[in-house]
Amino acid sequence: MTVTVVGIGLIGGSFALALKDKGLASKVIGVESDKEHQRKALTLGLVDEVKELNEAIEESDLIFLAVPVDAVEKLLPSILDKVTNQVVMDAGSTKEGIVEIIKNHRNRKRFVATHPMWGTEYSGPEAAVHGAFEGKATVICSKEDSDKDAVELVEKIYKQLGMHLVYMNAKDHDVHVAYVSHISHITSFALANTVLEKEREEDAIFELASGGFESTVRLAKSNPITWASIFMQNRENVLDVLNEHISQLRKFKACLEKENYDYLEELMINANKIKRIIK
Amino acid sequence: MTVTVVGIGLIGGSFALALKDKGLASKVIGVESDKEHQRKALTLGLVDEVKELNEAIEESDLIFLAVPVDAVEKLLPSILDKVTNQVVMDAGSTKEGIVEIIKNHRNRKRFVATHPMWGTEYSGPEAAVHGAFEGKATVICSKEDSDKDAVELVEKIYKQLGMHLVYMNAKDHDVHVAYVSHISHITSFALANTVLEKEREEDAIFELASGGFESTVRLAKSNPITWASIFMQNRENVLDVLNEHISQLRKFKACLEKENYDYLEELMINANKIKRIIK
Repeated sequence: MTVTVVGIGLIGGSFALALKDKGLASKVIGVESDKEHQRKALTLGLVDEVKELNEAIEESDLIFLAVPVDAVEKLLPSILDKVTNQVVMDAGSTKEGIVEIIKNHRNRKRFVATHPMWGTEYSGPEAAVHGAFEGKATVICSKEDSDKDAVELVEKIYKQLGMHLVYMNAKDHDVHVAYVSHISHITSFALANTVLEKEREEDAIFELASGGFESTVRLAKSNPITWASIFMQNRENVLDVLNEHISQLRKFKACLEKENYDYLEELMINANKIKRIIK
Repeated sequence: MTVTVVGIGLIGGSFALALKDKGLASKVIGVESDKEHQRKALTLGLVDEVKELNEAIEESDLIFLAVPVDAVEKLLPSILDKVTNQVVMDAGSTKEGIVEIIKNHRNRKRFVATHPMWGTEYSGPEAAVHGAFEGKATVICSKEDSDKDAVELVEKIYKQLGMHLVYMNAKDHDVHVAYVSHISHITSFALANTVLEKEREEDAIFELASGGFESTVRLAKSNPITWASIFMQNRENVLDVLNEHISQLRKFKACLEKENYDYLEELMINANKIKRIIK
């Protein structure tokens, strides 16, 4: 199978490596607008060659989109214009806008909307790693809107990558990821800004920051272009969660201001319930 | 050397193990009010015996306090009443209140105020681990207020545990830890409450939560009693940081509400500067 990966960064590059490692692709073509990323992707062996999009589509059996979600929305209709029997899939962190924009496209059924739930705070071709995706969940959205053979190909690939499949519609997906992914990134970015704003003694941060701080602030290293696009695409859900989060922080603030020890403890005892859900 | 560890939980238990592992203590006596924790500490081999506080003080060369910071404040004056030549040290996450309360004590100089910057989100004797503290920083506060031999003993122990020593006064310590530790815990507790409040489909969290969410929310599993005590002791600094953090979150909120893509990206580009400080 010849596969085109559009956007050879963290996700696209890792996907390309995984396809080769699992023997799923005989050739991987990279499509990438950044010249430096093109060069790195070839040097690192992430892709076999770099081509223009149209030529790559023509040669491929599968096209995998791993560009920021606003770029997926821009590219997808014109890619679908050109496909005949190819399968097109994406890895975007939001799904509602993407499926909406192509819902009446004549080739809609060649597209499978997916979201593999894996990532790191690093970006670019150098961030690509072997063994990514393994053991993680991947969401396939509204499979009934795609051709059976297209869904089956996508399912086969993700299963061989060691992922477990979760099915939901695009709307539900976007609500859930606002909670389990997007808000974590916002709190982390905001925490970094808090510390950078107020703590002028960087040496102190450097010396004293222990595991707790590092794990909470780690996501603040993530790519601003990727995440601006995600937050904007999912802005209503993210705003909902963000409002709730600010109001939860205000409860802690009120406890401290009023020295309400009992309620403060109660808030944390409630938060401990997260143990039920995450190991 | 005979050492008494008061409070045999995550910190006290791990310290006891480290003393034995490094050959620094020939005997470790545990003082612990919780009967179940007493039993577990003995079963797990964290301490050699469990005794009443007064008897333990009398037998010991060093007394290590690893109880919540409000309990340190309650216990410390009466412990200092009883010491002759023993050294007393604590591991509390706040320092200003503790050094204030004993500043005029006749045995003040036998006490060394310290804060080893290590911990996990787990608590109780079962949470104690071998090799804790290794490679981390430990703060020694206002060493000029302690006897030279007392400081030297404490320095020797921490160095043998593989820690590097940082010196500062109690007031500065409390400001810094509000940034590099306490706020991380509050955001994590509040994030857990946000998700638990609004995301009713726990299965979705369970299935979809990936590394980002887990690392951000991990600290929400921490012990509410320990942390209520820390937040209250350091409430003015924590309130300062919390206010800043809420205002940073509001900037993200305003960007989303006004669809201000450029400023949103700028906020995250600024947050990326944290890369300079944490690896």
